[in-house]
Amino acid sequence: MTAAQPTGNEQIADKLKFNEKGLIPAIAQQHDSGEILMMAWMNRDAVIETLDTGRVCYFSRSRGKLWRKGESSGQIQNLVDFRYDCDQDCVLVQVDQIGVACHTGRRNCFYFAARDGKEVVISQPEVSTEELYGKK
Amino acid sequence: MTAAQPTGNEQIADKLKFNEKGLIPAIAQQHDSGEILMMAWMNRDAVIETLDTGRVCYFSRSRGKLWRKGESSGQIQNLVDFRYDCDQDCVLVQVDQIGVACHTGRRNCFYFAARDGKEVVISQPEVSTEELYGKK
Repeated sequence: MTAAQPTGNEQIADKLKFNEKGLIPAIAQQHDSGEILMMAWMNRDAVIETLDTGRVCYFSRSRGKLWRKGESSGQIQNLVDFRYDCDQDCVLVQVDQIGVACHTGRRNCFYFAARDGKEVVISQPEVSTEELYGKK
Repeated sequence: MTAAQPTGNEQIADKLKFNEKGLIPAIAQQHDSGEILMMAWMNRDAVIETLDTGRVCYFSRSRGKLWRKGESSGQIQNLVDFRYDCDQDCVLVQVDQIGVACHTGRRNCFYFAARDGKEVVISQPEVSTEELYGKK
């Protein structure tokens, strides 16, 4: 028997340059509006699962395991296009975000702005964290 | 004499969480179109210089020094808004990109796409690297 041939998605993962911890940064962008939703990290398995399933999967550095975005909150990200950059060391996932991307209940995570030397909060939660993570 | 008070921009930098190498990832987005141009890294000095000058400055990991985007190519990024995320560990600079962002001469760096298990190049250079970096 010969060894199994790598799948196309495995070959894509092999093109990417993961850092010394086996991770690559991944930017999530809402595919139609262009809004940047969040930045998180993927390992090789997360890249392959994302490509195989069409649902975005990250690697949680705090929990040390695969993080299927939305698995506890229902706020999933359906993959529209998977891109990477000239150095192959950053991923851009263009997605259709169901609900909100941020754990605070905001649509996106980038809600702090530096303006005239001061921190300004530029968006508010659309849903409560109880609604996202509480009893159902 | 009392110690100098930190400036507002220094206080912003102190809110950010730099990694063990003193760096934070920074996503550059064209402010009006929403196009994601590139991802690079900033150290504390780069954050402060960006905020102080309104011209985006990164930290070059390969050269080990501040990288004033466009200093050799002329393809500068004028800062429109400086944002950061809920965990304070990722920066989003919304910019007005003069010319192209990518060293290959493409408008943005994310020109590889994974489609049906294959790598596809989805954009072409708009200017030659000779034009960007050659003799002037």
